[in-house]
Amino acid sequence: MAQKPSIPKGTRDFGPQETAERNYIFDTIRSVFRTFGYAQIETPAMENLSTLLGKYGEEGDKLLYRILNSGDAFANVDPERPLTPQVCEKGLRYDLTVPFARFVVQHQGELSFPFKRFQIQPVWRADRPQKGRYREFYQCDVDAIGSRSQLCELELVQIVDRVFAKLGVRVLVKINNRKVLTGLAEICGFPDKVVDITVAIDKLDKIGLDAVKEEMIGKGLTPEAVAVLEPVLTLSGTNEEKLATMRTVMAASPTGLKGLDELEELFGFIAAADIATPVEIDLSLARGLNYYTGAIFEVKALDWQIGSICGGGRYDNLTGIFGLPDMSGVGVSFGADRIYDVLKGLDKFPKDLCSATRLLLANMGADEVRYLLPVAAALRAQGIAVELYPDAAKLKKQFDYADRKSIPFLSITGASEAEQGVVNLKNLATGEQQSFAKEDIAGMVDFLRG
Amino acid sequence: MAQKPSIPKGTRDFGPQETAERNYIFDTIRSVFRTFGYAQIETPAMENLSTLLGKYGEEGDKLLYRILNSGDAFANVDPERPLTPQVCEKGLRYDLTVPFARFVVQHQGELSFPFKRFQIQPVWRADRPQKGRYREFYQCDVDAIGSRSQLCELELVQIVDRVFAKLGVRVLVKINNRKVLTGLAEICGFPDKVVDITVAIDKLDKIGLDAVKEEMIGKGLTPEAVAVLEPVLTLSGTNEEKLATMRTVMAASPTGLKGLDELEELFGFIAAADIATPVEIDLSLARGLNYYTGAIFEVKALDWQIGSICGGGRYDNLTGIFGLPDMSGVGVSFGADRIYDVLKGLDKFPKDLCSATRLLLANMGADEVRYLLPVAAALRAQGIAVELYPDAAKLKKQFDYADRKSIPFLSITGASEAEQGVVNLKNLATGEQQSFAKEDIAGMVDFLRG
Repeated sequence: MAQKPSIPKGTRDFGPQETAERNYIFDTIRSVFRTFGYAQIETPAMENLSTLLGKYGEEGDKLLYRILNSGDAFANVDPERPLTPQVCEKGLRYDLTVPFARFVVQHQGELSFPFKRFQIQPVWRADRPQKGRYREFYQCDVDAIGSRSQLCELELVQIVDRVFAKLGVRVLVKINNRKVLTGLAEICGFPDKVVDITVAIDKLDKIGLDAVKEEMIGKGLTPEAVAVLEPVLTLSGTNEEKLATMRTVMAASPTGLKGLDELEELFGFIAAADIATPVEIDLSLARGLNYYTGAIFEVKALDWQIGSICGGGRYDNLTGIFGLPDMSGVGVSFGADRIYDVLKGLDKFPKDLCSATRLLLANMGADEVRYLLPVAAALRAQGIAVELYPDAAKLKKQFDYADRKSIPFLSITGASEAEQGVVNLKNLATGEQQSFAKEDIAGMVDFLRG
Repeated sequence: MAQKPSIPKGTRDFGPQETAERNYIFDTIRSVFRTFGYAQIETPAMENLSTLLGKYGEEGDKLLYRILNSGDAFANVDPERPLTPQVCEKGLRYDLTVPFARFVVQHQGELSFPFKRFQIQPVWRADRPQKGRYREFYQCDVDAIGSRSQLCELELVQIVDRVFAKLGVRVLVKINNRKVLTGLAEICGFPDKVVDITVAIDKLDKIGLDAVKEEMIGKGLTPEAVAVLEPVLTLSGTNEEKLATMRTVMAASPTGLKGLDELEELFGFIAAADIATPVEIDLSLARGLNYYTGAIFEVKALDWQIGSICGGGRYDNLTGIFGLPDMSGVGVSFGADRIYDVLKGLDKFPKDLCSATRLLLANMGADEVRYLLPVAAALRAQGIAVELYPDAAKLKKQFDYADRKSIPFLSITGASEAEQGVVNLKNLATGEQQSFAKEDIAGMVDFLRG
C-alpha cells in the first residue's frame, strides 16, 4: 500500500548538489586540521545515557534523544516508578565534546598526550525546529588536550584563519578569557555575579552605557561597583591598549591578572605568526561560561549577517567527570550549517562541484556500446569521470540527461565511427568537436581536460 | 562524581589509526564511484517508523532501534494498548536501501533519471553483538535507478573490479539471476519451492550431489522433478557452457529464458569491457531472494577466508511501497567492516596513513617558538603537516611524542640557530641532518618530502 513518504521534522535529506557542497566544507576543514597534525577519530552515535545525562544542564537532559531498549522494553517495568529511565539506557550523541571526554578517559592508555584530535559527525537534539536550527546536524570539532600552553590557543586561531581563507570568507576572531571575567566580578566586590556582569556587558552595543549600568544595578551591584567596572565597559583602542587598561583595573585580582597574562602571551604569539585574520579582545564574549576556564573564542563572518560560525574555549577539567582530573584542553567547533549559509549567501562555492562527470558517451546500440566500453575504461583509468548512457534511447533524451547533470562533454559515436575506429568528442559549451583514433586516449584526455 | 566510562555493547570507538584506515577504504570506494558518474547523497539517521516498519520482515522490525518521542512521551498513553507504538514515532536507519527508495519517491521531481547515487553512512540494528557483527556499522551503497539496461549491471561489476584493484585485493564476482531460479522451480513443476531448491543447491559443495537430491525430496520435490534439475546441479565449464546447458533445460520456462538472456547480455558486455576480475555464474547465490528480481551479485576475497564482502542485485519495484511503481534499479553494497578485516589480514593498508604529521618542531622556549612560527606557517602553506610541541618540555619527552606518532622529521632549533637565522631539520629514519636558511622554505620542503 502506498504511503506518502516524509522525514521527521527538523531532519534533512541532502541531494547530490548539497552533499557535494557540504563535503567541500568538510574536506577543506579536514585538510587544514591535518596540516596542524590533528588526527580524526569517530565515536558511536549511541552513548550510554549515564555518559550523557547531567552534562548539558537540566534543559539539555530534556533535549536528549533516548533510545528504547531492544527486545520487549516494557516487559518488567514497575508502573509505580517513572517509566523513561526503566525503558531507555541509551541516547543519541548531543555534541562531540562529552563523547570526546569519554573517549580520552576510556582510551587514555593508548593515546599520546598532548592529544590533538578532530571529529566530524552528526549530533541530535530534540530542539524545537526553526529556520537554521535542526534536530540532526553535523559538528566539526578540533581539540588539543593535555597541555596548558597558549600555543594550543594560537593553533586554533591559525586553523580558523586558514580554514576561512581557503573558503574565501573574511572573518573576525573575538577572544575573551574566563579568568578576566572572574577578575572583573572580584574587583567590583561581587564574585558571584560573573554571569550577570557579562550578560550586561554583552548588551553595550545595543542599549548603550547608561542602560548597561542600570541593568547591573538592577542585578544587585552597587553604584560603587559599577564605577569600578566603568573603565572596562568603555574599553577601546588596540588589543595592547585594552590589555593595559585592564591590567590597571584588575590589579587587585590575581585570577584576573592570570587571565590577562594568558591573553598577552596569546597575542604575542599571534603577532609572531603572521595571521591575516583580525583578532580582537571582546569582554562580552560569554559562551560556555559554565565550563570554560581560560580562553573563549568566537568567529563571525564580516560580509554576511549571521550568528557565530565557529567558537570554543579552554576547559581545565572536561575529563574530570569521567575520573581523569587535571587534563586541560582547548578546542573550537565549526558550525557547518551556518558556514554553508555564508558560502551560499556570498556565492563562494566553487562551480562544478557536483557535475563530476566529464563525458557522457551516448548509447547508439549494443554494438557501439561494446566498441566504446574499453575507451570508457581507459579514460576512467586516467581519472576522467565517464558515463555511458544505459539505454539506446532517443538522442534528445540522452542530450537532456547531459544537460541536467551539467556534463560538459558528449560523444556521439555511431556505427560508421566504430567502423573507422574513431571516437567523436564534443565540448558542449564551445561547440568544438574533434575526432580521435580509438587508441588515442592521451589525446582524448587532453581534449576533455582542456 | 567519577564514573567508569563505557560505550553501548556492539558499538565502537575508532581511534586515529583505525579512522585513517577506514577513511582510506571509503575514499577509495568514493573515488571509483565518482569516475562512473555516481553522485553522493545523505539521508537522516532518524526515519519515521512508518517508513521503516514492514520493510525488513518480522525479524527486521524487531531489530529496529526506536526513539522515544521527545517531551513527556508517557503523558497521554493508553495503558490498555501496546505502549511502544504510542511512545515511539521514529527509528534509526536500518539500511540505506529503504531510505534511498523513500528519497527517490520524495524527491522524484528534482532528480534526473536514470539516477545514479551512492551513499556512505552508518546504520543501526539491535542484533545480538558477536565477532564481526556490530549494532552500528557503515554501509557503502551504490545504485542506478530508472533503467532496465544490463549496462547498469555491467557498471557495478566494473566498479567492483576497480575498487578491489585499487585496494590491492584479488576477488571473485559471482552472479546469479532471480528469473533463472524461478525458471528452475517452474520446469521441475514446483514453482513455489524456489527458496527450498536454492537453499539445497547452495549446499552442493558441502554435502555432495546425493545429499542435495535427498534434501530436495525431503522438501517435497518428486524424484522426477529432481531428475529434471540434475543437469543444473552438476553444471560445469565456462560461463558460456553453463548458459548453454541451462538454455536446454530451461526451454519450457519463459521467465527462466528471460533470465538467461539477461545473463548472456551481461556476460557479453563484461567480455567487451576488459575486466580483470574473474566473474562466474553461481546458481546457488540466493541473497535477497525476496526482493531481487533480476541479477544477484556476491563478491568474495580470493586470498582471505571471510564471507561475502560486497553484494547486491536488481529490484524492479523498490519504490512501489512508497507509491512510485515501475522504477527498476540495481545496486550493490560494500561491507566496510569485512573489507577492513581483509585489508588488515592481508596487510594491504598503505603505511603512514595515520602519521600525517611530517615534521615536529621541538619547543625550546618562547623566543625560539616565535622565531619558528612563520616557518611552520610557510611549510603548512606548502601542504606539509607540521606540529610545534606546545610546551618547552624536556627534549626526551618531545622526542618520545614524535616517536609515538611516527613523525619522520624533527627540528631542534635553539637560540643559537635563531641567532644565525637557520632552521635545523633531521630525518629520524636515516639520521641525516641539514641546516637551512630561515627563508629557504623550498629547500626545507624538498628535504621533508625526500
